[in-house]
This record gives sequence, C-alpha cells and structure tokens, in this order.
Amino acid sequence: MFPNQEIYNLNKQKLLMSLSTFFSPKSVAIIGASHTPGKVGYVIVENFVRGKFKGKIYPVNPDTSPIFGLKVHKSVLEIGDRIDLAVIAIPAAYVPKIVKECVQKKIPSVIIISGGFSETGDHGMLLEDEIKHHLKKSKTRIIGPNCVGVLDASSKTDTLFLSQDRLVRPSKGNIAFISQSGAVGSTILDWLSDESVGISKFISYGNAIDVNEVDLLDFLSKDKETKVIAVYLEGIKSDGKSFLKKLKEVSGKKPVIILKAGKTDKGTRAVASHTGSLAGSAKIYSGVFKQAGAIEAENWEELFDFAKAFSTQPLPDSNKLAIVTDGGGFGVLAADEAEKQKLLLPDPSKKIISELRKHFPTYVILRNPIDLTGDANEERYQKTLVSILSSKEYAGVVVITLFQVPTLGEPVVEIINSMKKYKKPILCCAVGSQYTRNLVRRLERNGIPVYSTPEVAVKCFSTLVKYSQMKK
Amino acid sequence: MFPNQEIYNLNKQKLLMSLSTFFSPKSVAIIGASHTPGKVGYVIVENFVRGKFKGKIYPVNPDTSPIFGLKVHKSVLEIGDRIDLAVIAIPAAYVPKIVKECVQKKIPSVIIISGGFSETGDHGMLLEDEIKHHLKKSKTRIIGPNCVGVLDASSKTDTLFLSQDRLVRPSKGNIAFISQSGAVGSTILDWLSDESVGISKFISYGNAIDVNEVDLLDFLSKDKETKVIAVYLEGIKSDGKSFLKKLKEVSGKKPVIILKAGKTDKGTRAVASHTGSLAGSAKIYSGVFKQAGAIEAENWEELFDFAKAFSTQPLPDSNKLAIVTDGGGFGVLAADEAEKQKLLLPDPSKKIISELRKHFPTYVILRNPIDLTGDANEERYQKTLVSILSSKEYAGVVVITLFQVPTLGEPVVEIINSMKKYKKPILCCAVGSQYTRNLVRRLERNGIPVYSTPEVAVKCFSTLVKYSQMKK
Repeated sequence: MFPNQEIYNLNKQKLLMSLSTFFSPKSVAIIGASHTPGKVGYVIVENFVRGKFKGKIYPVNPDTSPIFGLKVHKSVLEIGDRIDLAVIAIPAAYVPKIVKECVQKKIPSVIIISGGFSETGDHGMLLEDEIKHHLKKSKTRIIGPNCVGVLDASSKTDTLFLSQDRLVRPSKGNIAFISQSGAVGSTILDWLSDESVGISKFISYGNAIDVNEVDLLDFLSKDKETKVIAVYLEGIKSDGKSFLKKLKEVSGKKPVIILKAGKTDKGTRAVASHTGSLAGSAKIYSGVFKQAGAIEAENWEELFDFAKAFSTQPLPDSNKLAIVTDGGGFGVLAADEAEKQKLLLPDPSKKIISELRKHFPTYVILRNPIDLTGDANEERYQKTLVSILSSKEYAGVVVITLFQVPTLGEPVVEIINSMKKYKKPILCCAVGSQYTRNLVRRLERNGIPVYSTPEVAVKCFSTLVKYSQMKK
Repeated sequence: MFPNQEIYNLNKQKLLMSLSTFFSPKSVAIIGASHTPGKVGYVIVENFVRGKFKGKIYPVNPDTSPIFGLKVHKSVLEIGDRIDLAVIAIPAAYVPKIVKECVQKKIPSVIIISGGFSETGDHGMLLEDEIKHHLKKSKTRIIGPNCVGVLDASSKTDTLFLSQDRLVRPSKGNIAFISQSGAVGSTILDWLSDESVGISKFISYGNAIDVNEVDLLDFLSKDKETKVIAVYLEGIKSDGKSFLKKLKEVSGKKPVIILKAGKTDKGTRAVASHTGSLAGSAKIYSGVFKQAGAIEAENWEELFDFAKAFSTQPLPDSNKLAIVTDGGGFGVLAADEAEKQKLLLPDPSKKIISELRKHFPTYVILRNPIDLTGDANEERYQKTLVSILSSKEYAGVVVITLFQVPTLGEPVVEIINSMKKYKKPILCCAVGSQYTRNLVRRLERNGIPVYSTPEVAVKCFSTLVKYSQMKK
C-alpha cells in the first residue's frame, strides 16, 4: 500500500477529465485579490492584467472597491458569469469554505496558492482532508495547495505571485516544465526569459492533494503545444506503479527529462522538511526513469540543455557524430566527451577528404574532429558542413565555432543556419562575450542550440541518440 | 628518456633567469608589423596602441612608412634603444634569421606568434632546430612558436592577434591563466571579460621550443600579482619528473587548477594532430595531479568556477558546511551534492536554534540546509548568517538566495557582503535574469563569488576544503 493511495483513487476517477481549463480559462476568479501593492493577492491580479490575459478577470474580496479598475465581487457565488478557473490566495483556515463555494459554482479548475496545510503538520492535514471531502462527487479539480500554480504562454494565464519586475516570464515555446518546488521553478523561468527557448506551460503543483505528476504527464503528453516535458521532482505524490506506467507511456510519445532532487540521505532529509514527499533512493529512481525511457538530468542547467536540444533538433538515426571546429583544443575536449558517452567518431571517408582537400590548405585536419584551424573562413565551414551532413557517414554534427578568429565573417551564422535543411541534429558551442553572444542569438533564434562548453554539446547529442534508440 | 630531454636541458640552464620581460617590458619590437588592417602584424600593433601599453612600441617592417603614427624600423638591429621584448609575426621560413638578430641585439624575451613549425611536419621541425641553435649560449628566452603569446593586465602587454572588437580583454585580477591552446585560451579570456574575476597574466605557449609549463609555473608561483594558477593542458612539453616536482612545489604555495584535454583515446588522437603533444592516459595524469596537490577541473567552466573561489575566498579549516537558502528545492540539490562531496552538514546547535527561533516563525526550518522559506526578509538572512559564521560549528557557508521573492529587499546584498569580516568562505548561488544579475554583480564586485547552480557552489567549497587539507 502506498501512503497516497486514497488520493490516487480520487485521481483515478478524474483522470479522464481534462485539465485544460487550468491553462486556457475563458474567465478567472482571484479569491483573495488584494488592494495592497506587494501582497500576494495584489501581485496575482497585477500579473493577469499586465500579462495581457486573454479572458475575463474577476477579483473577489469582501472589500468591493475596484482593483486595477476591475469590478470586485464579495464571493464567487455572486459572479454572474461562468468561471473556468479560481485562484485562491487567502489564509489556509478559510480555504475549505471557499473550495466548497467553488464546487457549488461548478468551477472546473481551482488553484490553491495558500500554504499552511499538510506541510506544517496535523492541523494543516485536517484542512486538506476537509477540502478533499468537498471535492468528492464533484468535477472540480485542484492544483495545490502550497504552490505557485500555472503559467501558460498562449493564454497568458499566470498565477505566479512574483512581480514581473523581478521575475521576467519566458517567451512562448514548446517545452512544458513541471516543478514540484515553486521557488526552483519560478527562478528557472526567470532565467529562461533570457534564453532563446520558450515554455508552453509551467506548473508548480505543491502538496498535490488532487492533481499530481501522473495527471500532468498525461495532460501534457496530449498537449499540442508541448514537444518536450522537463520535470523537477522531489518525490512522487502518486503511487510508484502508476507513475512508472504513465512515465513509460508518455516517454514513448515525447521526451521527458527529469531532475530528481533528494538522491542522498542528506537530500532526502531536506525533502522531508520541504515538501513532505518520500524522496527514496537515487538508485530506485534512476532505475525507474531508465525503465520508463525517461531522461535524467544531473542539475537544472542540464535539464534545460537537454530540453533545448529536444525542443529544436530532429532525432539522429545512429551514434555517428562529426565534430567540426576552428579551435583545435575545443575539438579535443569534445572528442574526450564523445568517447565517454560511447559515441562513434568515424573519420571522414576518402571521398569526403579528397573533395575537401581540393579547397583547403594542407594544415586543415580532415579527421574527426575536423579542425578547420584558426584561419578558418565561411567557405571552409560551408563546404565541410555540406559534405558531412549530406553524406550517410554521420547522423549529426557538433559545431564548435570560435567566432573571434579574424578570418571568419559573420555570414558563417547563415551558413550554419542553412544546414537545417539536412534534417540532422546540429548542436553548437561558442564561448565569448558580446560579439559572440550576438551571433549565438542569431543561431538560437533560428532553432540551432548553442552551448557554452563542448562537453555539453556532445552530451546533448548523446542524449538525443539514447532517446532515439529507446523509441525504436 | 623523454623525447623532449634536449629541450629540457636547455631550459634547466635558464630556469633561474627571469621571465619578467615577457610581461612587463619597457620596450617592445613588433617584427612583421603590418600596414594592412586585419593582418596579424597590424592587429598586434593596434592592440598595443589601443590597449594603452605603458612602454615604447617599435614596429619593424622593410616598408618604413609609419604605422599608427609610430616610426617603423627595417630591423631590430637598427633600433637605437634597448628592446625588452620582441614579438615575431612573419612567415616561418624567415623566423630563424630574425631570432638570430634578436639574440645579437641581446633581447631577453622573444615571442614567436608564427605557425608553420613542428606542428606541420619535418621541414617545420628543422626550422625549430635552427632557432634552438641560435639560442644556445644566449640569454634570450622564447615563447612559442605557434602561439598567441602573452597578455599582462598591469603592463598592458598584449600580443594576441585578435581584435578587441571581437575579443574583449578581461579586467585585472589575481588569476594567472596558462593555455597550451591559443584559441581555447583567448575565447575564455573574452568570456572572462564579462565576469567579475580578472586575470593577472595569460600565456599561450604553443610548441614550447624553450619556455614550457615548468618555467611558467615556476615564474607564476613567485609572481606577486598571481594568487591562483589556472591551466589548460593538452600534454606536457617538459619531462614528467620535473613537471611533477615543479607542480608539487608550486601547489604548496598557490592553488594550481588544471583542465586536462586528451584524456581518452579519441581525445589523445586529436591532441596529436593539434599540438603534437603526448597526451597520455587520463589515469596517469589524474594521478600526477593528485600526487602533486593540484586540482583537476572537468571542463573550462569548472576551471574558472574553482579559480573564482580560490581568487576571492579564504580556506576553510574543516569540511563542516552550512547551507542557507530561501528556496527549499535548491537546498535539497545542495545537500545532495554535499553528500556526494563527502562534506559534513551538521545541524545547528541548540544554542543557535534557540537564538534564531526567537525571531523566526515556526515554519522556518532550522536544520541544515536552513530554509528561510519563500517569505524570507533581510533580517532572517542577517541573523542566520551571523549565527552561523560567528560560531565554531561551521567552516563556511553556501548561500542560495532567490532574490525574486517579494519580501526580500535589495539590502540583503549588503548583508551578505558584510559577512566577509568572519573570514570564512562564503559561496553563493542565484538564478534569474536582469534583476538577479544586477544583485549578483554587486556581490561579485565585493569579492563574493556567485554560481548558477547549487551543485557548483557546493563543489567549490569542497575544492577549497581539499586544497586546505592538502596544504596541512
């Protein structure tokens, strides 16, 4: 028996119901909407307004003076409109009563932001039980409590109670991000806002008294806006068996990349004080992920390094990689990592070599890595990449470009960009400051991922290979 | 016998001679100074001029029309001034003759930028032999050939033939950086220009027909401007025994951090085509580094993550670490890494707990990690850090601050900065975009290193511990 069996049973009944109103509600009620700048209930309304939410916004507060010019209602029951999503940000003690009203109003989706529930002890546990009682026989689904909720890049649904001045929202993209920790999730979103990859949906689900990782994986596997699923996980809230089953099913459709926290004794103990989950041993989880065909990341940067690769690149049909660079040392580092990852680095065939040798000086090294050397120009990149990618000798390429070398013009960016037509994975690495960063942005905007170390670029290729082999 | 024994003997005779004129020459002759924008010999003169080199600049070219308004001489022998440093950037075939002139002119330091020597085969090897012949019985020392040379942040000596428009130079700091690869080294310098840590001296030494890693380690160990030595190494150019001996001696004085490329079969093969060094097996090198007390980095980012920690932080006197955060999930990830690194994470004593509990709400978790939770304010950070750092319970702290939380004001930066007075290592982690980056800069400018993952911050603490234990 699993400790969360009761919750699981509750979920199972509702599994087929859609979670779509959490992400694209036509109307949202914000219960606990505040008139005081800086308060959670104020920031949430502010973010819906400033974030250009496409639906209707109904603030709810006993004090009915307007907030951001919006009419305020005393209760959801007084709103004369259908409500798709209710966001609750009031002290825990009052939450069960409000949930009851939401059920009565037949609101399909409720997000409880408030903390002060099971994570604080027995009294909070009783409050959660009361909420679960109200849920029975209703069609209402709940995310939370003790979470930051949902961000949807299309509908601009945004329940994060963090000001956009401090925490910039990422652009719209095809990566869905599930985070058990609201804080970890939100700060990573902020970091992502500077990156070229975007987010389709973000969900922080906190204590998960109803919607848990299994529901979310299921929903996202069917979501057309989501190509890759990235997960920060402390411990599962569903039972192990259904988690494995769902993870396996979803991984067969879309790559699921997981960063598991609480892998060691000390980490596990910290998880217990954090989200009250059973973290479990690293080995068990890693085994489950592997068995399910999910991809494990070692840290949050890797979670998004991998996600960026899957988000933009096709899958390779073998583990034959070509490394192309104008900086020999970086080629060496890439080759080291390729061997560690058990990738093949075949030398180019005589055909490719004799073709390229016609155009290149003798000191250009036509092995693998191919070292175009420090006086490389656009032509060398162009001819090499065409030869490599149009041949059947390689399944993909890692391109490590030192844009700073004097002979290399900016058009090399368009040359690399144009290689997308070969429909093989291209993963780049570039290191530098402003000049390089501008060129990197031009590659990434075109869907060519660029990494800051050769090792990461190679590891991403290896991850694409492993996922591709698993799917076969 | 080692293949480089002859070179080694040559070096040994000269080992006691100073390399200082490479870094702070009062006068520099640039042989091959060019009138044509973009050419290597033009860019070098340009960088000396634009970089505000403090000494005299003497361009040398058969065409004596002025370059950047500077008088041009036909030969170094015609310069009526003492020359401390000659920079040679002319085709390989002409280099031996020019070196002979430099010896005749008694120039103590010569940097040969030009490629086309032993790395290209037998003919280049003969040219190197000829140069070595001219060096015999002279006091002239040579860096190169086939290198980008030297950058000195104090004297503004800058022989890098890469335009400052594309490759920005880093600020002055206390990290010396030796790179066997000019390309790897220069692009990392460009990246460093955006970082708060700076460089004392950079040296790319290429084929190392004279000055090699042993000479450079020796010189930098005595250099007052250098606190930490970072090394990118493909294979040693000295013999193994003297390398180990010197590395051990220098590591006893200053931390030496090494990124070794060419650790695998594929990497080793790539090194052979790159700098012609014997890369050797990963195990042998790792063993040598460990035996010598040097620190090995896994990639170039780690090389500078570690260097940044040593550059700014005191050494801890035990492996007892406190983790303080306002984002529980990041605390879990940090605890996982601490266990992996075999660090101790003792809980705070009853004394600390009862002192802090007076001021903090019950949901603040006073274990280790200490989770100040998502409504943390400056006061919580201040009281916690003072308790931790003023006690004898901990040797250092990793502070993971989510600056985005609404209750936390910017003054938290000054609070963390003020903790330097306890003279214990403080390593921070922060994740985010612009708002966070600005606060990170304020910490780093004050000498508090900030990392982008909790794992790296913890690993840096662990590295400080290991070096500290080794020194004891």
